[in-house]
Amino acid sequence: MHNCYTYQDLFKFTLAVFKQIGCNDTDARVAAQVLLSADMRGVDSHGIARLTGYVRLWEAGRVNPGPDIRIIHETPSTAVVDGDRGLGLVVAHAAMKIAIAKAETAGTGWVSVKNSNHFGIAGIHAMMALEKDMIGVAMTNASALVAPTFGAERMLGTNPIAVAIPAGKQAPFVADLATTTVANGKLEVASRKNSAIPTGWAQDGAGNPSEDPDCVKNGGALLPLGGDRTHGSHKGYALSSVVDIFSAVLSGASYGPWAPPFPAYIPMPENMPGEGLGHFLGAMRVDAFRTKESFFENMDNWIDRFKNAKPAAGHDRVLIPGMPEAEKEAYHKAHGVPLLQPVVDDLNTLAEKLGVPALP
Amino acid sequence: MHNCYTYQDLFKFTLAVFKQIGCNDTDARVAAQVLLSADMRGVDSHGIARLTGYVRLWEAGRVNPGPDIRIIHETPSTAVVDGDRGLGLVVAHAAMKIAIAKAETAGTGWVSVKNSNHFGIAGIHAMMALEKDMIGVAMTNASALVAPTFGAERMLGTNPIAVAIPAGKQAPFVADLATTTVANGKLEVASRKNSAIPTGWAQDGAGNPSEDPDCVKNGGALLPLGGDRTHGSHKGYALSSVVDIFSAVLSGASYGPWAPPFPAYIPMPENMPGEGLGHFLGAMRVDAFRTKESFFENMDNWIDRFKNAKPAAGHDRVLIPGMPEAEKEAYHKAHGVPLLQPVVDDLNTLAEKLGVPALP
Repeated sequence: MHNCYTYQDLFKFTLAVFKQIGCNDTDARVAAQVLLSADMRGVDSHGIARLTGYVRLWEAGRVNPGPDIRIIHETPSTAVVDGDRGLGLVVAHAAMKIAIAKAETAGTGWVSVKNSNHFGIAGIHAMMALEKDMIGVAMTNASALVAPTFGAERMLGTNPIAVAIPAGKQAPFVADLATTTVANGKLEVASRKNSAIPTGWAQDGAGNPSEDPDCVKNGGALLPLGGDRTHGSHKGYALSSVVDIFSAVLSGASYGPWAPPFPAYIPMPENMPGEGLGHFLGAMRVDAFRTKESFFENMDNWIDRFKNAKPAAGHDRVLIPGMPEAEKEAYHKAHGVPLLQPVVDDLNTLAEKLGVPALP
Repeated sequence: MHNCYTYQDLFKFTLAVFKQIGCNDTDARVAAQVLLSADMRGVDSHGIARLTGYVRLWEAGRVNPGPDIRIIHETPSTAVVDGDRGLGLVVAHAAMKIAIAKAETAGTGWVSVKNSNHFGIAGIHAMMALEKDMIGVAMTNASALVAPTFGAERMLGTNPIAVAIPAGKQAPFVADLATTTVANGKLEVASRKNSAIPTGWAQDGAGNPSEDPDCVKNGGALLPLGGDRTHGSHKGYALSSVVDIFSAVLSGASYGPWAPPFPAYIPMPENMPGEGLGHFLGAMRVDAFRTKESFFENMDNWIDRFKNAKPAAGHDRVLIPGMPEAEKEAYHKAHGVPLLQPVVDDLNTLAEKLGVPALP
C-alpha cells in the first residue's frame, strides 16, 4: 500500500524533525533538502525512510545538532574540514561549498572531511557544482559491510563515488554508484520475498559465495563491484579502498573496519584510528580547462551520441548516467512521492515521540 | 617456450627502436622506461609486446616522434596540454610532471591532455607522484571496444583508472584497473585454447551475452565492470564514461566511439569531434591535507589491517592493490623478464626492418 506526499509535505515534516533535535533553521533546511533529494530521485533507501535512523544517532549522542564546521588545514586548492560530529547531510554540504569556492580561484577545489556521519546520497553533493558550471565529485566511507577480494571479513563500506558533469542543452551527466555489486537494500527485498539472490552479490561468513538473502545478516558480507575475481571484484575492492582512503585517511576520520556504523544499535568499533566518518568532495571549473562553450558543445554531442547508441536485443534505449533519476524526479515533482505504509507509520511514531505534527 | 631478458637488455633494445623512429634521446628514454614498466610489473599485454604496434602508428603517420608538447590553457591547479601527436608514453609523462608542479604550489594539479595516443599502463604515470609524497591519478580513453549497458554498439574503450597512494614503511597502494570486467587479452587467450569464456565478459553483435571467445572479434563488445545490469554493469559503464569525459571532452580530444584506434590497420573514425586520444593526470600533495607523518602513520595502519584481514575459505591472504605487481617487479628484477617466442620473433623482425641490433 502506498501513500503519496508532495515534496512540500515531506519538507515541512523533515524540517520540523531536524529543528526539534536542535538544528538551527538554516542547517535544518539543508538537511531536509539533502535527505529528500534521495526520495525525489528514486533512491528510497537513502531518503526520509532513514530519518528515524538519523534521530537515533542523535539520541545516542553521536550527532551534534549545532556543529562548528571548520577548516583545519588548507592550500589554494585543498582543505580538511572538521565536521564537529554534525549531521553528514549538513557537513558535506558545507564542505562542497568550500570546494566550489576554492575552484573559483584555483581552478579546482578538493575537501576531505572528518568527524562527520552519513551524508545521504553522494550525487546531490556532487550536483551542487553544476549550477556554477563546474564538475562535482563526492565520495564517502561507510559502515563496514563489504569483504575485500579473497577476504572473509567486513572491511569496507558500500563507499559510493558520484561525479556530476554539466552539459549545455542536454541534462547533466550524473554518475552515483556504490562500489559494491548491489546495495544491502536489495538483499532485504529478497529476504522479505524469501527468494535466492544471484551469486556475486554476497558471501557467507567463511567467504563462500552465497545465494542466501540473509547471509550478510548472518555474518557474511556484500561483495565489491565485479562480484568475484573472475569478473573483476578486485577492481571494485580497489575503488572502494580509494574512496575510504580519500575520505578518511586523508582527513583523519576513522577508516576501513573502524568506520562508525550508521545503525545506532551497533556499538562503535574499539580503538578507532580517527574521528567519525569521512567524505571527499571536489569541484573543477569547466573553464579551468576549456571555454565553457566548447566544453558544452562537445558534452552535448557526447550525451546525444550515447543516447542514440544502438540498443541491445530486448532493450529500447541506452541510458545516460543520471537519466533515470532525473526522470523519477520530474515524475515525483508532478505526482508526489509514494511512501510505504511501514515508513509512514515509523515517521508518525517519530513525530509523536518528538512532539512535531504528523504527516498530513 | 620462454626467453629471459634482463631489464637492461630490453631497455637498450627499446631505446634504440624509439631513437630510430626519430625520438630524441630524452624522449626515447622516457618512452622505453614507461613501456617496459608494464613488463616489469607483469602486465605483459601493455609492454614490449606492443612496441611493433607503436612503430606501426608512426609508419601510418599517426605519431609525431618530435612533438612540441605544450600547455594551451591553465589555472593555478589545472592545465590542458596539447600532445602534438607525440607518443602517449612521452606525452602523459610530461603532463604528469606538470600536474606535480601545479600540486607543489596549489596543493593539487590536474592536467587533461589531447592530441596524444596510447600511453602504456596508467599505473606508472600515477606512480610518478609517489616520490614527491603525493597521490597520483591517471586515466586515459582508448579504442572503442566496450558496449554501454543495454547497448549493442562499441562506444567506449577499456578506459583505465589508476590511483597511487604513498605510505610510510609499507609499500605504496597502487590501484590500476580497466573499467571493463576483463581486458581483451583474456579473450585472446581463451580463443587460442578454444575454450568458452564466462558470461559477463563479452557479448555478441546483437548485444546478447556470449561465451564465444571470438565474439568481440566478430562484431561484439567487451562489457563494463559488473558484466550485466544485475551485477552492476551500469556502474562500470558510468566509470568508463567519466574517464572518457575527463580525458577527452575536458581536453578537446576525440571521445567515445571516435577515439583513435591503437591498431594502425583500423581506419580512423570519420568526423572525429576532437584531436587524438585524451588522458587525465592528477597529483595531490599529501601535506595539502594533513602532515605527512600523520598521513603515513594512518596509511601504514590501513595497509597493515587489510593485509591481515581474515582470508576467505580457500585463500591464504588478502592482497593490497599493487602488491602482486610489486612482487612481480621484484622477481623480474632478480630473474629477468620472460618473453614468449612469438614476441621475440616479432621484435627481431622489427629490429631488422629498422636496422637496429637484435635482442641478445
